[in-house]
Amino acid sequence: MQTIFVLVKCELGKAYDVADGAVQNIDFVSEVHSISGRYDLLMKCCLTDGTDIGRFVNDDIQTLPGVRDTFTMIAFKAFS
Amino acid sequence: MQTIFVLVKCELGKAYDVADGAVQNIDFVSEVHSISGRYDLLMKCCLTDGTDIGRFVNDDIQTLPGVRDTFTMIAFKAFS
Amino acid sequence: MQTIFVLVKCELGKAYDVADGAVQNIDFVSEVHSISGRYDLLMKCCLTDGTDIGRFVNDDIQTLPGVRDTFTMIAFKAFS
Amino acid sequence: MQTIFVLVKCELGKAYDVADGAVQNIDFVSEVHSISGRYDLLMKCCLTDGTDIGRFVNDDIQTLPGVRDTFTMIAFKAFS
Amino acid sequence: MQTIFVLVKCELGKAYDVADGAVQNIDFVSEVHSISGRYDLLMKCCLTDGTDIGRFVNDDIQTLPGVRDTFTMIAFKAFS
Amino acid sequence: MQTIFVLVKCELGKAYDVADGAVQNIDFVSEVHSISGRYDLLMKCCLTDGTDIGRFVNDDIQTLPGVRDTFTMIAFKAFS
Amino acid sequence: MQTIFVLVKCELGKAYDVADGAVQNIDFVSEVHSISGRYDLLMKCCLTDGTDIGRFVNDDIQTLPGVRDTFTMIAFKAFS
Amino acid sequence: MQTIFVLVKCELGKAYDVADGAVQNIDFVSEVHSISGRYDLLMKCCLTDGTDIGRFVNDDIQTLPGVRDTFTMIAFKAFS
Repeated sequence: MQTIFVLVKCELGKAYDVADGAVQNIDFVSEVHSISGRYDLLMKCCLTDGTDIGRFVNDDIQTLPGVRDTFTMIAFKAFS
Repeated sequence: MQTIFVLVKCELGKAYDVADGAVQNIDFVSEVHSISGRYDLLMKCCLTDGTDIGRFVNDDIQTLPGVRDTFTMIAFKAFS
Repeated sequence: MQTIFVLVKCELGKAYDVADGAVQNIDFVSEVHSISGRYDLLMKCCLTDGTDIGRFVNDDIQTLPGVRDTFTMIAFKAFS
Repeated sequence: MQTIFVLVKCELGKAYDVADGAVQNIDFVSEVHSISGRYDLLMKCCLTDGTDIGRFVNDDIQTLPGVRDTFTMIAFKAFS
Repeated sequence: MQTIFVLVKCELGKAYDVADGAVQNIDFVSEVHSISGRYDLLMKCCLTDGTDIGRFVNDDIQTLPGVRDTFTMIAFKAFS
Repeated sequence: MQTIFVLVKCELGKAYDVADGAVQNIDFVSEVHSISGRYDLLMKCCLTDGTDIGRFVNDDIQTLPGVRDTFTMIAFKAFS
Repeated sequence: MQTIFVLVKCELGKAYDVADGAVQNIDFVSEVHSISGRYDLLMKCCLTDGTDIGRFVNDDIQTLPGVRDTFTMIAFKAFS
Repeated sequence: MQTIFVLVKCELGKAYDVADGAVQNIDFVSEVHSISGRYDLLMKCCLTDGTDIGRFVNDDIQTLPGVRDTFTMIAFKAFS
């Protein structure tokens, strides 16, 4: 399992629609939060090992209707 | 009362119109300043407790005509 | 419940020790990930409603041994 | 009157002390808020016209005990 | 005299046209350089005292054909 | 030889097409990687000495179909 | 093979020493360039698959004498 | 002639001393301004062609007493 966090900026006024769409339509998206700061949403995605992360963000997140910009953080290790 | 500061980037040449519009039409906006740096305006907003801040920014600020981008800072506590 | 995400930069070479310390010693920290980018760690914290978030970050996160800098994102709403 | 906003990053765990010190000891500081994001505090300062703003930030804000970094925004005009 | 520096991002492929236009058409623009980094151009502008800087950037720089984004730095004092 | 690195943000969902186009059509582009963070691609370009770098980025990179934004880093010296 | 790019900020005046040290002492570092912008150096590292990248940056790069700060970009795919 | 602009962050409260020192002691520094934003000073430097810019910033600017951080922008071309 490969975890990534994607910060998402949406078209103006569309953040809540994008959030609803992401959790309902993309299986790999496990959590979506609206947040303070420069971006509108923080999405936690859990990908299968070996997935090309760049292609996932390019093909699945950036093409969601209402998405305007993305910032991708790769999680190397989870502590618990 | 919940205070937030929203940095706003406007469509080119529209910052002063957006500022006038915000102070006249949004009750929760208590101050607007044109500023130096990356953004055109700094808005201070005073919301009632329990307001969904993300929805306020999404629905009320981002939909103002001429707004292009926002950056939200939450004030946790005021000192005086 | 109030969720926040804190990006943490650690003293050089100490990120994995900080991560272990945070998950073991701070009850409100529910997840810690080492990440790519400018910061070393992303911490998800779940606070009780009404907590002064600024004081929590100031008193509990910034005082962890090995922490050098923090960036706080407030989650307004979770979508699921 | 010249208004500026100064974002302040403090020594770890000292933000609330810095905030108290600023409102009590610097006459030109009219508001201090602890905030989300990269900085700990947002200070609103009202200076007399003709003040060298760079020198004020250098001499009065940066020398407050516990201050680590500053980011200065100049307000050109207030809308109301 | 009030000096400001404006970093300018241009429409793709238009930076050199914007630069030529600015030096030829805006009296207050005294230097333009194409630069490395996030922005395409750095403009040095010398304004008469008392000018509303926000309005100058909004009305004169942001409306130049080909300008896409601006970042304004105010010079408080020149050393020599 | 003058080496530069250009971070490139692409139109949504077009990063892999831009990458293919750059390596095939621009001789000076020696490497392209899809990357994490704010930008989609990192391009390494090797220019002949004396090239106007700003004009190269403006004319050759920014005009590639699908490019939305660029950030240019100049390499002063390579160590080996 | 897993490629990463690490931007490195060094202690003042030490960037060229850090660069020499990195290419001579860390096998995984394949290229080092001094660069313009916020950071002093850009290092390209080629890691074996399955390496914990966070631990590599934490243990091998951040502990190099003279390193002050790092920013890590993960390369998902190389185009050629 | 090669022109560069260096943004300089100084030790707290030392910006004006650094500015005086730079204009008096470094021949290549032609202008210094105290500025708004994240950095304290903007220095314009005019170097002879062929100078290793990274080494100049590393050896001459970063070693000035009171300098804490630098951000370098390379000017490709001046318009006039």
